[in-house]
Amino acid sequence: MAKPKKTPRPKAVTPKGFRDYFGSEVTGRSEMLDQIARVYHAYGFDALESSAVETVEALGKFLPDVDRPNEGVFAWQDEDDTWMALRYDLTAPLARVYAQHRNDLPTPYRRYAMGPVWRNEKPGPGRFRQFYQCDADTVGTASMAADAEICMMLADCLEAVGIPRGDYVIRVNNRKVLNGVLEHTGVTDPAQAADVLRTIDKFDKVGVAGVAELLGKGRLDASGAYIDGVGLSDDQAAPVLAFLTSKGADANETLTNLSAAVGESAMGAEGVAELRQMAELFAAAGYGAHRIDIDPSVVRGLGYYTGPVFEAELTFEILDEKGRKRQFGSVSGGGRYDDLVKRFTGQPVPAVGVSIGVDRLLAALHAKGRMSADAQGPIVVTVMDRDRMADYQALVAELRAAGLRAEVYLGNPKNFGNQLKYADKRQSPVAVIQGSDEAARGVVQIKDLILGAKLAETATLEEWKDRPSQYEVPVTEMVTKIREILDLY
Amino acid sequence: MAKPKKTPRPKAVTPKGFRDYFGSEVTGRSEMLDQIARVYHAYGFDALESSAVETVEALGKFLPDVDRPNEGVFAWQDEDDTWMALRYDLTAPLARVYAQHRNDLPTPYRRYAMGPVWRNEKPGPGRFRQFYQCDADTVGTASMAADAEICMMLADCLEAVGIPRGDYVIRVNNRKVLNGVLEHTGVTDPAQAADVLRTIDKFDKVGVAGVAELLGKGRLDASGAYIDGVGLSDDQAAPVLAFLTSKGADANETLTNLSAAVGESAMGAEGVAELRQMAELFAAAGYGAHRIDIDPSVVRGLGYYTGPVFEAELTFEILDEKGRKRQFGSVSGGGRYDDLVKRFTGQPVPAVGVSIGVDRLLAALHAKGRMSADAQGPIVVTVMDRDRMADYQALVAELRAAGLRAEVYLGNPKNFGNQLKYADKRQSPVAVIQGSDEAARGVVQIKDLILGAKLAETATLEEWKDRPSQYEVPVTEMVTKIREILDLY
Repeated sequence: MAKPKKTPRPKAVTPKGFRDYFGSEVTGRSEMLDQIARVYHAYGFDALESSAVETVEALGKFLPDVDRPNEGVFAWQDEDDTWMALRYDLTAPLARVYAQHRNDLPTPYRRYAMGPVWRNEKPGPGRFRQFYQCDADTVGTASMAADAEICMMLADCLEAVGIPRGDYVIRVNNRKVLNGVLEHTGVTDPAQAADVLRTIDKFDKVGVAGVAELLGKGRLDASGAYIDGVGLSDDQAAPVLAFLTSKGADANETLTNLSAAVGESAMGAEGVAELRQMAELFAAAGYGAHRIDIDPSVVRGLGYYTGPVFEAELTFEILDEKGRKRQFGSVSGGGRYDDLVKRFTGQPVPAVGVSIGVDRLLAALHAKGRMSADAQGPIVVTVMDRDRMADYQALVAELRAAGLRAEVYLGNPKNFGNQLKYADKRQSPVAVIQGSDEAARGVVQIKDLILGAKLAETATLEEWKDRPSQYEVPVTEMVTKIREILDLY
Repeated sequence: MAKPKKTPRPKAVTPKGFRDYFGSEVTGRSEMLDQIARVYHAYGFDALESSAVETVEALGKFLPDVDRPNEGVFAWQDEDDTWMALRYDLTAPLARVYAQHRNDLPTPYRRYAMGPVWRNEKPGPGRFRQFYQCDADTVGTASMAADAEICMMLADCLEAVGIPRGDYVIRVNNRKVLNGVLEHTGVTDPAQAADVLRTIDKFDKVGVAGVAELLGKGRLDASGAYIDGVGLSDDQAAPVLAFLTSKGADANETLTNLSAAVGESAMGAEGVAELRQMAELFAAAGYGAHRIDIDPSVVRGLGYYTGPVFEAELTFEILDEKGRKRQFGSVSGGGRYDDLVKRFTGQPVPAVGVSIGVDRLLAALHAKGRMSADAQGPIVVTVMDRDRMADYQALVAELRAAGLRAEVYLGNPKNFGNQLKYADKRQSPVAVIQGSDEAARGVVQIKDLILGAKLAETATLEEWKDRPSQYEVPVTEMVTKIREILDLY
C-alpha cells in the first residue's frame, strides 16, 4: 500500500498582481472617498452600489469566442453555464443598471459609485489587477448644463479633499469640434481619418511640430527610426494644427479660433456652441479659467467620448523617480458618451460622467503632505502586573471616553522592553505605565514616545536630563497631561 | 453566402443571486460601518483591506479535486494555471495576511476589516451570493483579556449604531466547558461524541426535554416521525443537561453550576476558569449581566470555536412575516479559534474574533426606526426658462453653500408637471420655482412638497385654503424659509 502523501503547507501569498492595504492606507482612502461622496451627494447625486459580478453578456465587449472570455476580465462559468465576470469599471454596470431599472429611476438619473474594479492584465510595478474607481454620471439628459455641472462638481471635489485652488485646472475640449476639424480637412477615407486621430493622440508627446510632420510626410523619431506620415497636404493638415493650437487668452478668443478651425462643418459648429454654453455657465457660477478652462490641446479620451471631454490636472510640481521636477498631471477624466444604454434597449440615452483616479489623487495628497495626521497609533497602556488587567482596562476606558484612541497591551507582559517595542511598532505617541507602587499612590507614569525617540536620536546627555520624556501625574490628571503632550505634535 | 446573423441585444439583468443597492441602502450601510469602524479604531484595532481575490490554495478547504474548485466559492484559473477565487469570508484572508506579513505586524495584531464576500451557493429569497461582513480579530495572544475586550467592544458597537442598552445582550459560553462535559459523560467513542454535539445543537429548537429524549432512546418528532436517540444512559446524559441548564441568578451561580457539570475534567475546569476571568473583567469594567452575560445555553458556533464563544442577540420584539411577535435574534457572533495560522506556518497562533452581520443589523435599525432621516431627496430647483440656467445654478449653489442638498432640474423643462413628478420621485422635500416674472421682482416660489402631498391626500377644501403649501419669498430669504420648512419634518 502506498504511503499517503502529506499535503504540503499552502503558501501565504497574495495572488499575482493583487495587494493588501494596511491601517492608514485604508482609512486615508476611505476618508478621501467620504469627502468626495459628500460633494456628489450635495449636488443631488444618489449612491449606487452594483454587484461586483456581472454576466459577461451584460458587460459586453468580452463575448466568449474561444474557450473563455479572459480578455481583460476575470471570468468563469456559473453552474447553469452562464459566463460571469468581475466588473472592469463602474460605467458598464451603470449602463446595465439603468437599462434594467429605468422605469423606477428618475430621469435624469444622477448617480455616484465608488468601489474596486478588476482587470485581468499583466501586473507591473505600481499596476494592480484590483483598484478603486470613483465615478459620477448623469444619465438621460443632453443638456450641456449637466456637463458643466460635473466639471464644477469635480473642481469642488478636488478642493474638498485638500487640493487648493491654483493647484489644479480642469481642461475642457469637445469631440464634435474634432469631428468638424476632420470634415474641414476633407479627409473622407475612414482609415485615413483613423490615422489622423491616432496622430492627434500623440500631440502630448511630440508637440505641434511633431504632429505637423506626422500628418504630412513623416518624422524621424528620437530613436532614429523614421515614422511614416499620414500623407495629408499642408492645406489639409492646417485645420488640425489650428485646432490643437487654438487656445487663446480667454474662452472667447479660443472659441473664435475653434470656429475658424472647423470651417463650414455643421458638426463642428455644434461642438463650438456646446463649449460656449459650458463656458458661459462656468463664468456665471464664478469658476474662472484658472479652475476650469476651455483647452483644445486636451486630446486624451477624445476617441472614446461623443461630445464634451474634460480632464483634471494637478499643476504643482513633484520630483519624479529620477529627481527631476515635473507637474503631477492628470487625476480625473470624463465626458459625454451618448450610446451607453443603447446596446440593451435599442434606444439612445444621452449621458455624461466623470471618473476620479483614486490612487493618483491619494498620491497627490501624500505629495502635498495632507495625509500625515492619520499615521499616529493608539495610546498603549502597559501591563506591569498581570493580575491587575481590570485596572488597566479601566485606564483605557477612561482614555477612550475622553475621545482618545487607546488600548491595553495584550501580549505576554513579562518583558517590559517588548511592551515598549510593541508601542513603537504601533507608532504610539504615548505609553501609560502603572506598577503596584504607582497604583498605591494613585498615579501613573506617562511616557512621551515621540519626544523619547527624538531624544534618543539626537540629544546630548545634558538635553536628555533637562527634557524628561516621562512624567508622573495623578490618575485624575492622566487625560489632561496626555492631551497636552498630543497637542505638541 | 449566408446572411450574417444579427447579434441579439444583451439582457440587462443582475447575475442570479446578486443585487444592486440604491441611494440610502448604500449610504445607510456605509454610515453604520463608519460608526462601527470608529469604535474598532478607538479600541486600537487597525484597518486591513485584503484583496477580494485569493489563491484557492491560500483559502484552503476548497482544493481542486475534480475539474474546478467550485464548492462554495467562485473560482477560475489564472493564465499560469493558478486557481484563484473570490474570498468567502474575512477570516481566511486574515490568516493568509498574518502568515505573510507576520514579521512586519505588531504582536498581538488587532485588526478590523469590512467589505463584501462571495458565496457560490444556491440563491434564495433574501439570500444573496455577495454580502458584507464586518470583523474584528486579535491575533497572537491567548489572554482572556482579548476575548473580554472584544465582547465589550461589541456592546459599544451596538450602542454606537443606535441599539439602546436593554435592547441587546451578548451571551458568552465556552467550548472547553462543553469538552469537559463530554468527558464527564464518559462517552469516548468519537462517533458517539459527534452525535452528542449534534444533539446539543438542536437545543434551541427542541429545548431541554427534547435534548434529554434525543440523548437517550429517541423522540417523536412534531411531524410524527420517530428520531432515534444517541443511546446514553440517564447518568451519562445528566452532565449535558446540567450544562445546558446551568444558568444561575448571577455569573457566580452559573460558574458554580458549570463546575459541577464538568465533574473532574481538567479541560472543563480550564473552560470554567476562562469564563470566570472574563466575567470578572466585565464586572470590573461595568458591563453588567444585562449587557454581557455568561450563558451556557448558547450553543451556536460551539463546534467551530476552541475556547470562548459569544453571540449578540437583540431582545426587542418585531412582527415576523406572519404577523406574530418574536425576538429579533442574533446579529453577531464570535469566539476563539487557535489554529488560524498554523496551516501556513506550522506554528499555532492563538486568535479571537467577532463578526457583525451587517444586513441583519441594518434590518434591526430599520425596525427600530433609526434609518429614516436619510431617505429625503435633494431640494429641486425647477427650470421655468431654459435660457436662465445660469440663474438656476446660482440658486442651487447658494443652497449648497448653506449646507443644503440641492440640484437643478436637467431634463426637458417644457412640461412643468414632469418637473414636479421628478421632484416627487426624488423624494424632494422642497421645490424652488422662479419664472421671469419672479426673477424681475427678486423673489422665488418655495413649494413644500411634503405638506403638499399630505394635503393632497387628506385635506378638505377649507384646510387646503388655510394651509398653503407654497410661499413666495425674496431670494435673499430663500435659505431661511427652506430651513424653516425642513425643520418641521
